[in-house]
Amino acid sequence: MLRIITQQADVIAELQRICDRTHDDQVLHKEATVREVLQAVKRQGNKAVLHYTAEFDNQTLKPEELRVTGSELDTAYQQVSQELLAAIRLACQQIEAFHRKRVPKSWVEFGDDDVVLGKRYNPVDCAGLYVPSGRSGYPSTVLMNAIPAKVAGVPRLVMVTPPGAGKAISPAVLVAAQEVGIQEIYRVGGAQAIAALAYGTETIPKVNVIAGPGNIYVTLAKKLVYGTVGIDCLAGPSEVLIIADETANPVHVATDMLAPAEHDPMAAAILLTTDAALAKNVQVAVERQLVDHPRRIDTEKAIAHYGLIVIVESLDAAAELANEFAPEHLELEIQDPWELLPKIRHAGAIFLGDSTPEAIGHYLAGPNHTLPTSGAARYASGLGVETFMKHSNIIQYSQSALQKVAGAIDILATAEGFPSHADSVRRRIQREE
Amino acid sequence: MLRIITQQADVIAELQRICDRTHDDQVLHKEATVREVLQAVKRQGNKAVLHYTAEFDNQTLKPEELRVTGSELDTAYQQVSQELLAAIRLACQQIEAFHRKRVPKSWVEFGDDDVVLGKRYNPVDCAGLYVPSGRSGYPSTVLMNAIPAKVAGVPRLVMVTPPGAGKAISPAVLVAAQEVGIQEIYRVGGAQAIAALAYGTETIPKVNVIAGPGNIYVTLAKKLVYGTVGIDCLAGPSEVLIIADETANPVHVATDMLAPAEHDPMAAAILLTTDAALAKNVQVAVERQLVDHPRRIDTEKAIAHYGLIVIVESLDAAAELANEFAPEHLELEIQDPWELLPKIRHAGAIFLGDSTPEAIGHYLAGPNHTLPTSGAARYASGLGVETFMKHSNIIQYSQSALQKVAGAIDILATAEGFPSHADSVRRRIQREE
Repeated sequence: MLRIITQQADVIAELQRICDRTHDDQVLHKEATVREVLQAVKRQGNKAVLHYTAEFDNQTLKPEELRVTGSELDTAYQQVSQELLAAIRLACQQIEAFHRKRVPKSWVEFGDDDVVLGKRYNPVDCAGLYVPSGRSGYPSTVLMNAIPAKVAGVPRLVMVTPPGAGKAISPAVLVAAQEVGIQEIYRVGGAQAIAALAYGTETIPKVNVIAGPGNIYVTLAKKLVYGTVGIDCLAGPSEVLIIADETANPVHVATDMLAPAEHDPMAAAILLTTDAALAKNVQVAVERQLVDHPRRIDTEKAIAHYGLIVIVESLDAAAELANEFAPEHLELEIQDPWELLPKIRHAGAIFLGDSTPEAIGHYLAGPNHTLPTSGAARYASGLGVETFMKHSNIIQYSQSALQKVAGAIDILATAEGFPSHADSVRRRIQREE
Repeated sequence: MLRIITQQADVIAELQRICDRTHDDQVLHKEATVREVLQAVKRQGNKAVLHYTAEFDNQTLKPEELRVTGSELDTAYQQVSQELLAAIRLACQQIEAFHRKRVPKSWVEFGDDDVVLGKRYNPVDCAGLYVPSGRSGYPSTVLMNAIPAKVAGVPRLVMVTPPGAGKAISPAVLVAAQEVGIQEIYRVGGAQAIAALAYGTETIPKVNVIAGPGNIYVTLAKKLVYGTVGIDCLAGPSEVLIIADETANPVHVATDMLAPAEHDPMAAAILLTTDAALAKNVQVAVERQLVDHPRRIDTEKAIAHYGLIVIVESLDAAAELANEFAPEHLELEIQDPWELLPKIRHAGAIFLGDSTPEAIGHYLAGPNHTLPTSGAARYASGLGVETFMKHSNIIQYSQSALQKVAGAIDILATAEGFPSHADSVRRRIQREE
C-alpha cells in the first residue's frame, strides 16, 4: 500500500531516505563487485568480458560473436512491424529537432590592441552508448543516446547492449541503431560493458565518453571509470515526483507514479499534494492499477519501498520539498503550472499540466530522457549534445597588448612565487634573447 | 637534461606515459589514503578534519578556528600592496568580462498545437571552491574559481584553503576572495577539505559542486566524491605542450616549459618542433634558466621525468600528436598559428603566437585557468559558468497535440513492455477516469 504522510511528519527524513536509496550500504557492497569487474576487464580484456557475460547474462559467447553482424542488422528490419518503424522514425525526427536547438558554437571576439579571445567547440572522437536490455529492448534509449552524439558531430559511435536468450539483441534496438547511423554494436552489458568501453579490449574500442542509463551496476561502473573517460550523468533507477492540487486527475496521477516504478524495483514515485481527497484517491487508484499489472512484483516493490504521498500545506511548500529532492522527473499537475515553475530550481525534466504525462518525454516530445537521478539534478543536467562536446579556450595577445598588462602579471606571478611565469612575460616585453 | 627524441623513436609510448602519469600504480596507492580520509571525515566530521590538518598540514586547530574571522578578512587589506590589489582588480575585471559572454539562458519555444518545449537554466544552491596553498597563496585561483560561480548566480560560495604556518591564510587570497564577494572561508586543504565540502561537517556546509585545481590528493578526492556532489573537471598537475617552428624564440619556449614545471614536480612540459636547431637551443636555454631557479629542485624533477622535446616531420604531425596527448595548455609558437588551429581538436586552452605566453591566460586574459589535465581534454572542458549551472527540460503538451502522437507512444511503450507508460497516454486520450 502506497503510504500517505502529512507535512508535519518526518517528511524531510523520508524524502532523504528515498533520494539516497542508491547511496546506502547495500550499494557500497555492489561497488566492490563492480570494482572487481572493472579491474578484470582492464587486465584481461575480452576474456573477462566473456566470463562476466556468461556469469551475469547467462550467455556463452566467443570473442568473434561479440560484435553484431551485418546480416543480423539487415534481418532486424524484417522483424519489426511497419507501425513500430514509423513510431521510431517519428521519435527520431522530434528528438533530433529538439537537440539541434542551441548547439554550442565556436566563437572568437576581437578586442583592443588585436587581442583575440574565444572558445572552440569540438566533439569527442569516439562515444560509447549503453543501452540496457529489457523484455523487448529499449529502442527509445538508442535514440536518446545516439541522436545528441550525432548532432554533436562525433565521428565514431559504438553501442553496447546485453545479449538476451540465444545471444540475441532486440530487433527494435538494432533497427533504431541503424536509423541513427550506428553500425558498430557489441553484445555486452552491465559493468563489464562499461569497463570494455573505458579501457578497450581486443575487440571493443576504448571510447572518450560513455553515455546512457542503466541499472545500479552500470551506474556504479560509470562513476568509477569517470576520469578515465567522460560520462553523461549518473542516471540510475528512475523517479518521478508529482505536485498535484485538487484539479488533478487521480487515475492519471496514479498511472504516472507506476510508470517509473515499472522500470526498476529501485525506482521512486512521490506525490506531493495539497488535497487530502486526491491523496486517498491516488492511493486507491494505484492499488487498483497494480492488480493486473504485467510487471506487478517489481512495480509493487518500488511502490512499497520508494513510493510516498505527502499532504502539503501549500504548493510553495511542495516546490521547496521538490527542490530538496531534485527529482529526475517532475510533473506539475496543478491549475497553473507556469505560475509555480519559477520556484522550481532542481529537476531533470519538468512536465506541465494534465496532458503532459512523463511518457511523452520518455518517447518522443524531443528533450532527452536520460536524466540525473538520486538528487544529482541539484548539480547536473541530463544527457545532451554538450555531453559529447567540449571547448578549448582561445587566447591571442599582441605585443602592445602584452605590454599593457605585463606589470600586473609580473606582480601577480611574483606574489604567487612563480618566477618563470613572470619571466615568460618580462622576456617578451624586453625582447630578451 | 631535457631529452630530445625524434618522431621515429617511441614518441607515442613516451607521450602516453607522460599523459598517464597520474594513473599509475603509485597513484593507486595514494587513492587508498584518500579513500580513508574521505570515510573518516564522512563519519567523524570536524574531528577527522582537524586530525588530518594536524597530520598533513602540521597545524593544530580547534573547531572554532576553522572559519576565517571577520577581523582576519579586514586585516588582509592592510597586508597587501596597492600594486597587488590593483593587479587583482584588473584580473577580476577581465575574467568577469570573459565569463559573462555566452552564459546559458533559459528558453522556451512554442510549436504547433500549443506544444511548449524548452530548457530552464538554474545555478546550484551552494558551491565549494578549493584554493591550493602556495608559498604566498594563489589569489589568481580564487578569482578563476569564484567569478564563474558568481556569474552563474550561485547564492552561496564557500571557500577552503590549507592553513600555512601559524594557521595563517595568505592575505592576497583573503583579499581576492573579498573582491569577488566571498566571506565564508575555512582553513582546510587536501582530501579532508574535499570530504568536508562533499559530506558536510558540524562547521563546514555540504555543497553541491566542488571546483578548483589541486595536487594529486585533491584531484583523487574530487574524483571519488563525484556523484555525491558535482565537480568541475579533473584538474591535476599542470602541463604545457608547445608546437614550435623555426620562427619560435628558444628562450621564450624554454621559459614557457618551465612555467608549469615550477608548479608541481608532477607537471609536464613537451615541445614538438619541426626544427632541430630550435630543439637544441631550447634544451640549452632550459638548462640555463634552471641554474638560478628559486624552485629549482621541484622544477628540475618535473622536467626530468615529464619533460620532452620531439622533433617532428611536419606541423600537421605535431597537431596530430597534440590531439593524442590532449594537453591542458597548448601553445602554437609558429609562423601562422591560425592556419594550424582548425587541426587542433583536444586542448584545454590554446595560446596563439609569441606574444601569448601561457602566463597571460593563467592570470588575466579572461578565460579560465582551471583546465582538464592528463588527457581529460579529450572529453572535458575547463571550469566555467556552466560548471555551476544545470538545466531542466521543459515540456508541455496540449490535449490535441497528445492525441496526435498517442498512437506512436502506445506502440513504443508496448514494444518496450511498459504498460503504465502506454496507459498514461491512453487514459488521457480516452478521458478515462
